[in-house]
Amino acid sequence: MNTVEAIMKRHSYRGKYKNEAVPKDDLITIMKAGLAAPSGCNKQTTSLIAVDDLEVLKRLFSVMDPPVGETAPAAICVLTERIIAYRDKCYAVQDYAAAIENMLLTITELGYSSCWYEGHICGDDRTGYKMAQILNVPDNYELVCFLPIGKAIEEMPVVQRKSFEERAWFNGFRK
Amino acid sequence: MNTVEAIMKRHSYRGKYKNEAVPKDDLITIMKAGLAAPSGCNKQTTSLIAVDDLEVLKRLFSVMDPPVGETAPAAICVLTERIIAYRDKCYAVQDYAAAIENMLLTITELGYSSCWYEGHICGDDRTGYKMAQILNVPDNYELVCFLPIGKAIEEMPVVQRKSFEERAWFNGFRK
Repeated sequence: MNTVEAIMKRHSYRGKYKNEAVPKDDLITIMKAGLAAPSGCNKQTTSLIAVDDLEVLKRLFSVMDPPVGETAPAAICVLTERIIAYRDKCYAVQDYAAAIENMLLTITELGYSSCWYEGHICGDDRTGYKMAQILNVPDNYELVCFLPIGKAIEEMPVVQRKSFEERAWFNGFRK
Repeated sequence: MNTVEAIMKRHSYRGKYKNEAVPKDDLITIMKAGLAAPSGCNKQTTSLIAVDDLEVLKRLFSVMDPPVGETAPAAICVLTERIIAYRDKCYAVQDYAAAIENMLLTITELGYSSCWYEGHICGDDRTGYKMAQILNVPDNYELVCFLPIGKAIEEMPVVQRKSFEERAWFNGFRK
């Protein structure tokens, strides 16, 4: 699969997963792809914890309401450090978003499915903080995203998108 | 080139570009890849303007200090609408960062080089706003990133990165 194919094939999967472990090597490949993303002023603000120990996964799901991706045999938790890159600028969000997109594309290429769960984690109920505590993450890191990983067993409806002409132009707005 | 190869090959290019036009079809492929990125609650907050008219490019460079990527024969300007996805949550930054990463990977796959210029655009001197005015972008859109596109003619030093073990673990922090 080339890059453009993976980009076009990637989609958010919210269905059930096959009960089949994800090999550690695949999780490493996915995390390496995430860490290869650019970061503002090369601050490398993103860190990752892969979870494939089913006991640990169960504990994570126990603090998530709802436990999104609950049938996945593995997951990656995305951590960020909100470091100033220069002056008053912090690019931590851009950094982890680029890392997540790299991981979603690699997940697609390796034949797995996933979904970018961020809103479920970063709400007022501090789910991300509870998950971080289970993983012994120190307070200078924030757990901002949860990516379940596994083989899909359901078909997902394709999301409706605006046309190219409504979002992309040449040499001027709406030209 | 498969996805992981493109992810590992992508790097920020800050050198001079070959004086050779980028075919419109390639710019369309790159923009389609950008628009295929996920967006929070599918709000599709990212829009794009490719610039390959050398007169327009010249006007853009005239308001940039320094005019980064000045020798590039084409560029893509990234626009965002800071729309609330739900409650008080806005995912515009995540949305455009994922779109930019998709474009950088596609640029790499097609044999071009680029660099994610955001800090240069979004500073106190409001460069992005001046560029947006040249492109007739209305005020509800913000121009947040400039991606020059062209063939590299210089070698760039590889950026130093922390080791995998310093940023990625299994089933717990630093495990």
